[in-house]
Amino acid sequence: MSDAATPDQGCRNLRWALALFDGLVHGGVRRVVLSPGSRSTPLVMAAQRQPLVELTPILDERSAAFFALGLAQASDRPVALVCTSGSALAHWFPAVIEASESGIPLILLSADRPPELRGWGANQTIDQTRLFGGFTREFHDPGPAEEGPAALKAMRALGLRAAIVSRGPRPGAVHLNLPFREPLVPGPACTAEPLGALGAPDAGSHDRPGARSSATDRLDVFDTPHWPQDLTPLLGGRGIICCGPMRPSDASAEAIFACADLLDAPVLADPLSGLRFRPAQGARITRYDSALRNRETAVALRPDWVVRFGATPVSKTLSGWIQGIPSILVDTGERWTDPNHDVIARITADPMAFCRLLQTRLDRDDSRAAQGAWIRRWADVEQSLDDLARAFLEQSPWCEGHLIADLLERLPEGDGLFCANSLPIRQLDTWSGQSEKPLRVFGHRGASGIDGQSSTLAGLNADRSEPTRGVTGLLGDLSFIHDLGGLLLMEKLDRPCIVLNNGGGRIFDLLPQRGLEGFEPLWRTPPRVQPDALARAFGLAHRSVEDAAGFAQAWAEAMDAETRGEPAGLIEVRLDAEQSLATHRAFWNGVRELSIIESE
Amino acid sequence: MSDAATPDQGCRNLRWALALFDGLVHGGVRRVVLSPGSRSTPLVMAAQRQPLVELTPILDERSAAFFALGLAQASDRPVALVCTSGSALAHWFPAVIEASESGIPLILLSADRPPELRGWGANQTIDQTRLFGGFTREFHDPGPAEEGPAALKAMRALGLRAAIVSRGPRPGAVHLNLPFREPLVPGPACTAEPLGALGAPDAGSHDRPGARSSATDRLDVFDTPHWPQDLTPLLGGRGIICCGPMRPSDASAEAIFACADLLDAPVLADPLSGLRFRPAQGARITRYDSALRNRETAVALRPDWVVRFGATPVSKTLSGWIQGIPSILVDTGERWTDPNHDVIARITADPMAFCRLLQTRLDRDDSRAAQGAWIRRWADVEQSLDDLARAFLEQSPWCEGHLIADLLERLPEGDGLFCANSLPIRQLDTWSGQSEKPLRVFGHRGASGIDGQSSTLAGLNADRSEPTRGVTGLLGDLSFIHDLGGLLLMEKLDRPCIVLNNGGGRIFDLLPQRGLEGFEPLWRTPPRVQPDALARAFGLAHRSVEDAAGFAQAWAEAMDAETRGEPAGLIEVRLDAEQSLATHRAFWNGVRELSIIESE
Repeated sequence: MSDAATPDQGCRNLRWALALFDGLVHGGVRRVVLSPGSRSTPLVMAAQRQPLVELTPILDERSAAFFALGLAQASDRPVALVCTSGSALAHWFPAVIEASESGIPLILLSADRPPELRGWGANQTIDQTRLFGGFTREFHDPGPAEEGPAALKAMRALGLRAAIVSRGPRPGAVHLNLPFREPLVPGPACTAEPLGALGAPDAGSHDRPGARSSATDRLDVFDTPHWPQDLTPLLGGRGIICCGPMRPSDASAEAIFACADLLDAPVLADPLSGLRFRPAQGARITRYDSALRNRETAVALRPDWVVRFGATPVSKTLSGWIQGIPSILVDTGERWTDPNHDVIARITADPMAFCRLLQTRLDRDDSRAAQGAWIRRWADVEQSLDDLARAFLEQSPWCEGHLIADLLERLPEGDGLFCANSLPIRQLDTWSGQSEKPLRVFGHRGASGIDGQSSTLAGLNADRSEPTRGVTGLLGDLSFIHDLGGLLLMEKLDRPCIVLNNGGGRIFDLLPQRGLEGFEPLWRTPPRVQPDALARAFGLAHRSVEDAAGFAQAWAEAMDAETRGEPAGLIEVRLDAEQSLATHRAFWNGVRELSIIESE
Repeated sequence: MSDAATPDQGCRNLRWALALFDGLVHGGVRRVVLSPGSRSTPLVMAAQRQPLVELTPILDERSAAFFALGLAQASDRPVALVCTSGSALAHWFPAVIEASESGIPLILLSADRPPELRGWGANQTIDQTRLFGGFTREFHDPGPAEEGPAALKAMRALGLRAAIVSRGPRPGAVHLNLPFREPLVPGPACTAEPLGALGAPDAGSHDRPGARSSATDRLDVFDTPHWPQDLTPLLGGRGIICCGPMRPSDASAEAIFACADLLDAPVLADPLSGLRFRPAQGARITRYDSALRNRETAVALRPDWVVRFGATPVSKTLSGWIQGIPSILVDTGERWTDPNHDVIARITADPMAFCRLLQTRLDRDDSRAAQGAWIRRWADVEQSLDDLARAFLEQSPWCEGHLIADLLERLPEGDGLFCANSLPIRQLDTWSGQSEKPLRVFGHRGASGIDGQSSTLAGLNADRSEPTRGVTGLLGDLSFIHDLGGLLLMEKLDRPCIVLNNGGGRIFDLLPQRGLEGFEPLWRTPPRVQPDALARAFGLAHRSVEDAAGFAQAWAEAMDAETRGEPAGLIEVRLDAEQSLATHRAFWNGVRELSIIESE
């Protein structure tokens, strides 16, 4: 068999691809990010014919995949990626890994050569099957396009299935590898329209198809047989609720705070927990990374148990401190996030489901009613650290701490902040505090790489479901340089991308590598190209700031850019890294020396 | 178990890594390309302590891997890559695929967390085992560092094995996943030196350890039992020798031409066959892609058999034309490159071994002695097309054809040319012709992607084993924009990077996609950022040319830059794409209408 033309092969390809997109659209896909190519032509033509679908072309597949990741996070919908055959799809891999580890729905549509050309040295042909190994939730290779209602129905079902599986119970990427025979473009006589309903569930029956299922949908996920009979006794004594990176619904967030109230436990909220910036009841604690550096405090607040929601928290101080304390891990998916190996019970449930069931199991009149003192101690510590941080910043040279406090103050209600890995997320953890003003904080703590951050930021800003909201970026200079392809996408940012320029990977300055031979070129690796030069090349506004007044002005100008129809551009924050390091150390020393808690 | 410190863990890590590098160096590794990270610290420190090893830091792992690919090609040695844990190594994947498909030796050294932290949600921890699936030749995960001579000997052996396996018989990447427990930096009391000879073969016994084994080494690869008894009759009648992308030694190249002489067959030499630009005997044919567009010629020259060396040729015209003709595939490795499904015999042998054995099997006095007419016909066609191309270019507006002829004329003897995929390699195929002047032509025809081309070019130029030679780049504008990270590496180019700027993916203008709705934004995708702006941002010289005089001047200036200690920089060739398309079509039409051969 050859790749030779048959009269209506192009039309068959298009109808096949259209059926697939019928299913994807029905499953909630509204956005398709494509990288150009020839073999993927039937997929692109099919997407063009779907009225509900918007296509975004991005040349570099790696950038495209991170963009899709951001878009999926912002829109709470699976986003489809399309690329041609060969090494193209391998560029998706870093984002696919993050999607898997962070639980973000993606649909990977890789065009391929037909089976008779695979493994025979044909042009742009590699073995694409299961290319992403265990990092996709499902893989399908449905073979070349076929005709007839049954074949098209199967493709439509595959599209629907891919969209739904990508969303849960453990969200991630689904990979469909799609071989097409030539010709790839249909002849002029070809008629091909979206099929609409073809024995599949009616789109009208969904409230908001494709939106991430709300916590309510997941009540049934709670697996009663796994409820350990002896869980209630474990929750005796003094405990804490530790919330790592997650994306709780409003109802889940409220249920967690209610549960904390019932258990008389403080809620330690990671910057990516979705709990720091929203109305809260009870003791919400955000200054633990600083507070627990104080030895007396660390000893006095040591709990008897931990209930954990979400992924592993950013704070290494926290993780080290809870080591050895029996933990109950509550998680909807299959993840078992327990690097300390302290989990003694694992509950497969949405936080809300768990909290509600807990209410039915715990007697509110047990001994804990007397223990309001426990969460008050925590609240006092939070207040002390809050006061300390404020006072400290007032008399310290301007650094990331000032910037972060200022930025969080300025962000409009409902807005988003995307914080890059390495140092920025740790500085946000240290300095953010908490507020009642709702903000969405995004970050990639699945694999915690410094990769794809600019492209993700562009994707987060590309969601138009809530057009008044934008997502500001907070990136380090190395993240910024690692993803140069993302600069091509920044012309559409509604909010500025803030680049903390401190001359390389300053996180290494906090690690034992500092001072090794070759430290500067081999670990810290200061970039050779500066943000202002890049901004010029890519046609982006660039504002360089070094202090509070400068930032205030740059922020105002950047936020005003949209009204002039311009992209918000870059705000480069030039930092004296040595001074910043000294300032952070001075703060932590201040915390260590503070008498913030009386031992019992 | 935890990742906690034991007193001498850092020292144990370093000794372990040193033993590995002892083996790698013994196996011929001289260059290590690293991307910064913390977990990989023992590997970097070990590489630093190897006097024969040179370290190159490159931030973006994707760019680093393509750079290594270029360096391995230019130096004929395996190149080691080092990165930290998490998604970092996934960025290597596109280059690993190309290494596998093109047969280029790489050693992938990924740092990892120790087993007790894998799968438990620890920071920057993913399942790195077998991450590249079937695209690596071997995968090993030797576990965390251990002490004692036996353990170190095992690691040294693993390094040696990785280096040797990466080189053949089927060259490609070998992946070693290396977990390290904390602390990663040894204490001040640690003594750790390269072990030198530890029960491993003496480096002195190798002539040039690590250089790609010469063809002579591979005589034993020839597998006599696979020699089909009936091969000789198959080679009756008129045949051609078709040489696709490969890297023959001088001896192999000579043997192929001698074999062709014996078989009375012309050698159709792909631009990447290593045979177009070197002294040759017999009928060397390079204009077939044009010539076979002439129907009479295609019919008159149709052979009875094909002997194929190397991978699938660039020319689609050639592949289509030989479809249906019985082919004998000669290949050293496991590849079975036969997209037409015409192979009737496959010989596992180096070209030289095959050709020499053939000489012992064929009787020189058989009927073919009368057939000198066959290769003369081919030689006449080559000459006619050569004359036609020259005459055509003389009276046509300046385009890629002129540039390529001019560039090949100007390249110093022994120099290299790296030609990007998509349109540039096809234009090189069309216009290069042949010459006796030795030139090395590089290109990535394994997966034939447009990815990583600038980084590869930088890697090709980073080999210093023959310091007077350099490698010029010939890239399309989309390739150039796809690999922005490569721009960070261009400050060290000895030869210019020529960017053919024709406003996007003009190969699509030759395909049926041209004219589709959304053709410009979804297929052709013209870049929004121009080479001159990028050159400014990255501190590279930029010269824009539009005609022969401009190119001559820019070339002279760029070649002169080295003497001033400056990088050669970019030469942007601004092309009128519509005019270029018309010129190419006019040439092929001219070929079609020409009476270049009399039918028999």
